[in-house]
Amino acid sequence: MGGERLVILAEGALDDHGGKTAFGVLRYGSRPVVAVIDSTRAPGRIGDIRRIPGRMDVPIVASLEDVLALPDPPTTLLIGIAPTGGRLPDAWRPVLLRAIAAGLDLVSGLHTFLADDPELRGAAEAAGVSLHDVRRPTGPRATATGRAHRPRTAVVLAVGTDCGIGKMSVMLELREAAVRTGDRAAFVATGQTGIMIEGWGAPVDAVVADFVQGTVERIVEQGEEAADWVLVEGQGSLDHPAYSSVTLGLIHGATPHAMVMVHKPGLVEHDFAHLPGRSFPIAPLPGFIELHERIAGLVAPSRVVAIALNTSRIADEEAARRLIAATEQETGLPADDVVRFGPDRLWAAVREATRHLVEVAPGT
Amino acid sequence: MGGERLVILAEGALDDHGGKTAFGVLRYGSRPVVAVIDSTRAPGRIGDIRRIPGRMDVPIVASLEDVLALPDPPTTLLIGIAPTGGRLPDAWRPVLLRAIAAGLDLVSGLHTFLADDPELRGAAEAAGVSLHDVRRPTGPRATATGRAHRPRTAVVLAVGTDCGIGKMSVMLELREAAVRTGDRAAFVATGQTGIMIEGWGAPVDAVVADFVQGTVERIVEQGEEAADWVLVEGQGSLDHPAYSSVTLGLIHGATPHAMVMVHKPGLVEHDFAHLPGRSFPIAPLPGFIELHERIAGLVAPSRVVAIALNTSRIADEEAARRLIAATEQETGLPADDVVRFGPDRLWAAVREATRHLVEVAPGT
Repeated sequence: MGGERLVILAEGALDDHGGKTAFGVLRYGSRPVVAVIDSTRAPGRIGDIRRIPGRMDVPIVASLEDVLALPDPPTTLLIGIAPTGGRLPDAWRPVLLRAIAAGLDLVSGLHTFLADDPELRGAAEAAGVSLHDVRRPTGPRATATGRAHRPRTAVVLAVGTDCGIGKMSVMLELREAAVRTGDRAAFVATGQTGIMIEGWGAPVDAVVADFVQGTVERIVEQGEEAADWVLVEGQGSLDHPAYSSVTLGLIHGATPHAMVMVHKPGLVEHDFAHLPGRSFPIAPLPGFIELHERIAGLVAPSRVVAIALNTSRIADEEAARRLIAATEQETGLPADDVVRFGPDRLWAAVREATRHLVEVAPGT
Repeated sequence: MGGERLVILAEGALDDHGGKTAFGVLRYGSRPVVAVIDSTRAPGRIGDIRRIPGRMDVPIVASLEDVLALPDPPTTLLIGIAPTGGRLPDAWRPVLLRAIAAGLDLVSGLHTFLADDPELRGAAEAAGVSLHDVRRPTGPRATATGRAHRPRTAVVLAVGTDCGIGKMSVMLELREAAVRTGDRAAFVATGQTGIMIEGWGAPVDAVVADFVQGTVERIVEQGEEAADWVLVEGQGSLDHPAYSSVTLGLIHGATPHAMVMVHKPGLVEHDFAHLPGRSFPIAPLPGFIELHERIAGLVAPSRVVAIALNTSRIADEEAARRLIAATEQETGLPADDVVRFGPDRLWAAVREATRHLVEVAPGT
């Protein structure tokens, strides 16, 4: 990807849940980002909205035109928003066509595949650019086989009390901490943003249902070939009215030795208020932890070994630290906010809880 | 479907798990069946293999040629076998091409869609016959919304301790019993065989994972428009290494008021021995019942109200009846084998446990 420079389309999405792809690629991706498009926040800089080391000065612009004339214009437009249902909003079509006409490749994580759209495909062929749909499943359609893990490997899966609360970020942070301390760790991407960041993985929620567990099994096996610690990105939550089946597919497909429970204090119900009068509360941690171990154990034993808190709703840093301590007290497990306070402490805990799987006992 | 006459392709599958589509269509379908093709059992009659009222005399023939010259030849070839992974075995291609050339429509429940196969599609177009892939999802790709059920409707879902043990048959039998006693009951098909029998439904395991729960929600809503009792076909089991995610999608998508637990005594592990040295035992009933209620309750309250036993492994009828009584004792729930002993008793129990949902109290 030498020479690739991104412009990220995040129209109207830079300050809510919907912009998680944009922020994820900014925070954890390695490709240069020329600008982010969001006319509702332009002109500005990413640092005005969120603290992302190394990306604070990335400009927010009102339209694609603002960056096409730059001396180093972008080579690729990345769609940095993931609307519910994953369809392509009509309003984006002119921007995508303009990007194609200007010679930019497109990267998309939508359920609606750009390359299946006759107008976009025709334009891309005419312009000689590529349309990259990262959510299109590419692997074989395989049923899970119940394979055993590679010996001396620890598989760790992120689970959580809701979707969209930072499961991917937690595993990317833990991977970074692991690699920094010399551990061989791989991140296994299971969603579109993770795949955009990492360059491989499988869009598990876009796979035909019968093959979800087989697909997860396969990418975990790929991870095992490259690392001692295989850190698997989670999706959804076991109690989510719309996405719990994908979550269970990850738990039973990955058969993790250990799980990291991600939780966002202050959230009281699932962001899922499509219908009036219905409410789906966030589960209390201790019972939910035990339930995860029991459900995972239906296929293979697993333990929750750490709590990753997303304390972004608690502005005061000392209050956040007190909450982390209280969570450790409540659950008896190590807890931390790895994005806010760094991942080293939680990685040390996860490592300690799993190293017996990786290390060969002396004399054996 | 006036005038439609089936020939069912079940080559090599008439006496094992793989023939469940053939046997299901024979037992619960209403279309005339001219013959079943299985050269390993031909010549013979269905009654030689299994007791299916009204179908005992359906001939088993060695090849398609045996039925093409009959005075009333079949109009449709139905693929009556569902191999793991759902691919089209190469050996069937000549038979399918021969059927097409002879002017037969094809009905398939495979994951591999016949109409996407250039050779088969070309031949079908040339012959003017249709290729009907019942496992191709046809509805909108919608995320679940968490809708509430229609007032005065009871939704009942079949769950089970394994796949392929008769969840569909149980719900079809209960529907028959309900209708016979004057109750307005609908069967909601969620798999290929159920759809072939019923003519509508959704192939839940063939839907993109993100839309499983939304798809189930939609077909349950369709069922509610037609009936007071909505009996939803189940799939897989919550502890199945390959299919549990589909099972959970049904539980959280249908949000059933009540569940019927299907269990096959004598089965000790999941039919899932692809890899040597791995074994996945069948769960004991009481804990598994409680776990289902707890997991369903993560989204909406639900109770297991009856046990449907598949006692086909217990040859002696008295022993089967004793086992049913012992199961009632063990679980505190009504139990029966609805295929072997008739569904009336179990339907009465399910009806009793759910009628408060359907009936309006006097004076209100």
